[in-house]
Amino acid sequence: MVSPIRWSDGALELLDQTRLPAEEVWLRCESDEDVAAAIRRLAVRGAPAIGLAAAYGAALGMRSGGDGDADPRVRFERVATELASTRPTAANLRWALDRAREVVVERAGDGSDAVAAALVELADELAAGQREADRRMAELGAALLEPGDRVLTHCNTGPLATGGLGTAGGVLAAAWDAGHLSQVWVGETRPLLQGARLTAWELGRAGIPFRLVTDASVGALMTRALVDRVVVGADRIARNGDVANKIGTYTIAVLAARHGVPFFVVAPLSTIDTATPTGDAIAIEERDPAEVTSVAGHDVAPVGAAAANFAFDVTPRELVSAIVTEAGVLEPPFEESIAGALGS
Amino acid sequence: MVSPIRWSDGALELLDQTRLPAEEVWLRCESDEDVAAAIRRLAVRGAPAIGLAAAYGAALGMRSGGDGDADPRVRFERVATELASTRPTAANLRWALDRAREVVVERAGDGSDAVAAALVELADELAAGQREADRRMAELGAALLEPGDRVLTHCNTGPLATGGLGTAGGVLAAAWDAGHLSQVWVGETRPLLQGARLTAWELGRAGIPFRLVTDASVGALMTRALVDRVVVGADRIARNGDVANKIGTYTIAVLAARHGVPFFVVAPLSTIDTATPTGDAIAIEERDPAEVTSVAGHDVAPVGAAAANFAFDVTPRELVSAIVTEAGVLEPPFEESIAGALGS
Repeated sequence: MVSPIRWSDGALELLDQTRLPAEEVWLRCESDEDVAAAIRRLAVRGAPAIGLAAAYGAALGMRSGGDGDADPRVRFERVATELASTRPTAANLRWALDRAREVVVERAGDGSDAVAAALVELADELAAGQREADRRMAELGAALLEPGDRVLTHCNTGPLATGGLGTAGGVLAAAWDAGHLSQVWVGETRPLLQGARLTAWELGRAGIPFRLVTDASVGALMTRALVDRVVVGADRIARNGDVANKIGTYTIAVLAARHGVPFFVVAPLSTIDTATPTGDAIAIEERDPAEVTSVAGHDVAPVGAAAANFAFDVTPRELVSAIVTEAGVLEPPFEESIAGALGS
Repeated sequence: MVSPIRWSDGALELLDQTRLPAEEVWLRCESDEDVAAAIRRLAVRGAPAIGLAAAYGAALGMRSGGDGDADPRVRFERVATELASTRPTAANLRWALDRAREVVVERAGDGSDAVAAALVELADELAAGQREADRRMAELGAALLEPGDRVLTHCNTGPLATGGLGTAGGVLAAAWDAGHLSQVWVGETRPLLQGARLTAWELGRAGIPFRLVTDASVGALMTRALVDRVVVGADRIARNGDVANKIGTYTIAVLAARHGVPFFVVAPLSTIDTATPTGDAIAIEERDPAEVTSVAGHDVAPVGAAAANFAFDVTPRELVSAIVTEAGVLEPPFEESIAGALGS
């Protein structure tokens, strides 16, 4: 299993996911600005992995430097604001920065270097916690699948997205090991093709049979009864169970409901944002239209063509069959099952 | 307005649509085999344009040559079989060949060259008839739209698809002229990006405002109430009103129904195949998986990744608000309105 995030010799090293599958290139981030830039351009992506990268990025931002004498709490807020602005939708990003803030407040009197060291420790803990959560979600999710299942997934939710087994991708891997999976349908996930580039790469390495399809093919697959379950990840889950995930997920959920195909979301508790009451309140990132008018760096539309590029959509809770978390499989009514899992 | 098909100096010239928008290159087809190859690789596409190309291709196939002494009827069947095999879903292809067969049977005694000349005349007539049908559909369809409408379309259905104004594309152009359109949402239409490459090119030339989106964005657009109508073409319409069209159309129709957005299909009567009782009986072309694993000639998936590439899907009639034909706007129940329009 590949881990796309490693702390090495005082810097954060990231497997540059924009270069996969053609090349395996590691980026070395020496500052919080380096990490923010890497998150922004999706060198690291996947809500849990973004959270971990931000935690290490916060550590890098606290090391003594030009403004090393400032109050660490003041400095942290500057760093956290920069990191939080990179991807507005991912809940795990702010969750990780909130955890970091607690450490900063507690250790502020010890000086910036001590705070930085404590933040590296925190990030290591969060990464270990994610790996453990992934193992638990994989086990719980695999039990929801049945021998022979042909499972549709979208975007990338495997090791590249979390640094562990993955969320939905971890469920697929565990289901394959358990004999609860016959094949994965992988939606290519335009515009940035995380399905075609990353999920196909992960599944191929793991030896799990898959077939890639364009995102527009989902309806035809369901009409032909070629999909037994849908398993996807999430970027943010509202308190009521509405799910923000990669653009196209909502469409898949609508089709799944029409065709009676169970629709499972797999996400750690850190993806649930209780400060977000419903999906309507989730900020949806809009990215550069050039991602739509070009593919892999090559223009496909006429020069100057206008495009819209919403990065996520929101699937309303009534289309979700269950949410698999490390604390258990949450079922409707989600408002209650989520509150129960969070102990709130 | 560009016309992608022209008969010139005894050969069929086609604007090579695989090269747009980067280059405007004309292909010269001197034989039925040349035409079949051009249809197969989508140098010419759009159900009506394919029908016209096949009619000219049949004429080329009847010119005296190696087997010039054979019975023209026998020879025609060989030519027609080759041409009909190129794209199994498009109804207009077989419709045009059926019209050609009538000419061949009638003129068989006059020899191959006379038959060939008569087939060129037929093809010219079919092209003129398509232009006239397009004008009528554009007028009827534009009247269904309202000032301020933001219309979603899919694939390419303008002049490039018919040699006239287009089907759905003609409606958009007429609606723009009539002030019944504020903006077009263009689905890029993976894998071959006819929306991004061709529809964006046509709309840009016509000065009609548009925004390109990935196919997976349709749900997000509808959630945000950014789509007032859907207008698409068709590759084959069954006798009961089920509609085969470019892959992704069914998904759009399901979302439109969920969001209360009218869903209009625009197609000439030649696209209606009364020999096809329902959508279940429509043969769906499966194309080379390499169209999915690569984009514009560049590999995007890992080497050897398996893919499925259905070219069309079927939208069941209950999701269709109306079918705009040159004989009028057909409304449900379609079995009856279609029979009425065809006088059958």
